[in-house]
Amino acid sequence: MDLSKFIRNIEHFPKDGVHFKDITPLLADSAAMADGLTQLMALVGDEKIDKVAAIESRGFFFGTLLAQNLNAGFVPIRKPGKLPYKTLKEPYQLEYGIDALEIHEDAILKGERVLLHDDVLATGGTMKAACKLIESLGGEIVQCNFLLELEFLNGIQKLKNRPVKSLLKY
Amino acid sequence: MDLSKFIRNIEHFPKDGVHFKDITPLLADSAAMADGLTQLMALVGDEKIDKVAAIESRGFFFGTLLAQNLNAGFVPIRKPGKLPYKTLKEPYQLEYGIDALEIHEDAILKGERVLLHDDVLATGGTMKAACKLIESLGGEIVQCNFLLELEFLNGIQKLKNRPVKSLLKY
Repeated sequence: MDLSKFIRNIEHFPKDGVHFKDITPLLADSAAMADGLTQLMALVGDEKIDKVAAIESRGFFFGTLLAQNLNAGFVPIRKPGKLPYKTLKEPYQLEYGIDALEIHEDAILKGERVLLHDDVLATGGTMKAACKLIESLGGEIVQCNFLLELEFLNGIQKLKNRPVKSLLKY
Repeated sequence: MDLSKFIRNIEHFPKDGVHFKDITPLLADSAAMADGLTQLMALVGDEKIDKVAAIESRGFFFGTLLAQNLNAGFVPIRKPGKLPYKTLKEPYQLEYGIDALEIHEDAILKGERVLLHDDVLATGGTMKAACKLIESLGGEIVQCNFLLELEFLNGIQKLKNRPVKSLLKY
């Protein structure tokens, strides 16, 4: 199935000059979502995965589906103040200012093989911070997995030697 | 499986005097998550569901899993400013002040049978706002479905005649 038909372009969101890829038409179609999951699973291949970690909030959509299909645990990586237990925090650069991501400090056990998932790879800043959180807990990043990649932003460069796979490239 | 063993109590989160139910240990255990999904599906029973709508962000975890297992489309209901396309907005009361939820105006077609899911039923304010959004778009609410219900807060009263089912009650 050509999943790009289910991605809606929104001009000037969340701000002027940004062309946003809206994945909600894909989510709203159960067959497209099932096919998206099948194609994301194919990107993972035969890799054994202990945990799927996904980034708030749009990463959660396919993140939980991937976790269940891989018989892996699911780990949410969230904005500061959202996770209730003890956390590790990792800052990352925005265009103006900084933001941060947090993970529960018991979310990943040392040596666990982790699939990191998010909906979109743009500049790579959030995924890089997520990678650092997983690595700080002793997890091994098997793959950074994305539904969409905005190749012109070259986010893959920021992720360095971590394996990156994306389903749809723009 | 007794899923209550996977719910962690966090005292004084997100603020003093609140005892928070942390579901991340359940998410981290793939067998517990699979069993949680099976038990949530049993609450839905034989009902035909066209769309599963879930509330940002913790509702997304089981919301997407329920949607795929019911062969239904998935609809995210989000905080203001997060959804990129045209939205409907519904305010709701907080302890101090108000907040609001939004839904894409093309997310539900008139007459569609909708399962609403969230992780926790507390005072019922957010779920009531979500119900109004679905009903404004002409959707029929088949069930308000929760992983946990804090019965002492009596949120079920706020949801009036809408059918409510919860897996774990406190």
